Amino acid sequence: MITYDQARQVCETYIQSLVTNDVDAILDLYAHDATVEDPVGTEARTGQDALRSFYAGAVTGVVEATLTGEPRLAGNEVAFPFQVIAGQPGEEIQINIIDIFRFNAEGKVDLMRAFWGSDNVGGKS
Amino acid sequence: MITYDQARQVCETYIQSLVTNDVDAILDLYAHDATVEDPVGTEARTGQDALRSFYAGAVTGVVEATLTGEPRLAGNEVAFPFQVIAGQPGEEIQINIIDIFRFNAEGKVDLMRAFWGSDNVGGKS
Repeated sequence: MITYDQARQVCETYIQSLVTNDVDAILDLYAHDATVEDPVGTEARTGQDALRSFYAGAVTGVVEATLTGEPRLAGNEVAFPFQVIAGQPGEEIQINIIDIFRFNAEGKVDLMRAFWGSDNVGGKS
Repeated sequence: MITYDQARQVCETYIQSLVTNDVDAILDLYAHDATVEDPVGTEARTGQDALRSFYAGAVTGVVEATLTGEPRLAGNEVAFPFQVIAGQPGEEIQINIIDIFRFNAEGKVDLMRAFWGSDNVGGKS
């Protein structure tokens, strides 16, 4: 079973890697056959190739990403709230997100679901 | 499809009803055959009778409950971070939680999953 410190470290590595546009570091957190549903309600992507394509786009323009509350670990799943700031200088937007990571027995994320919608996207305050 | 304002109102009613110990108001948010997994990783409870038993205990001693970030609506599911303060005066604890509500076509919650663990429980600061 994953520990709280391990789960928190995965959340922090994920968020930092969005900012540094480090797709390899993000993919290293995932199991080989992981599924990502981002945002929830859209078609899920499965497998490292599909995830690499997705994250190559998703990290583009990310300027800042910050945890806005502590990760909540329950069983083998962690939920964590964060804020992303993205966009060109002077035209940044902020997006408030809650992600869920489910961990497999090896401590890799095998399911990710991202909760955010248009009402969570706004001009940078 | 549920709107953001409707989803947010459900989250706020839920949190307020924890504080007022209003189990009927909580159950009214749920579909008849709803399932609650609280916390995630424990056995789920299904149906209004099982939910009534669960909430009769869960609301006991709740002193405060506050949204700690905006609800994130994605598709027909909303995730929201909140903090509960519970316990006797002078012995309160705080619990940081993220809940997910999935809405059915009638706007009732048919699945709830609550993310929190022992590392999210602390003395009141």
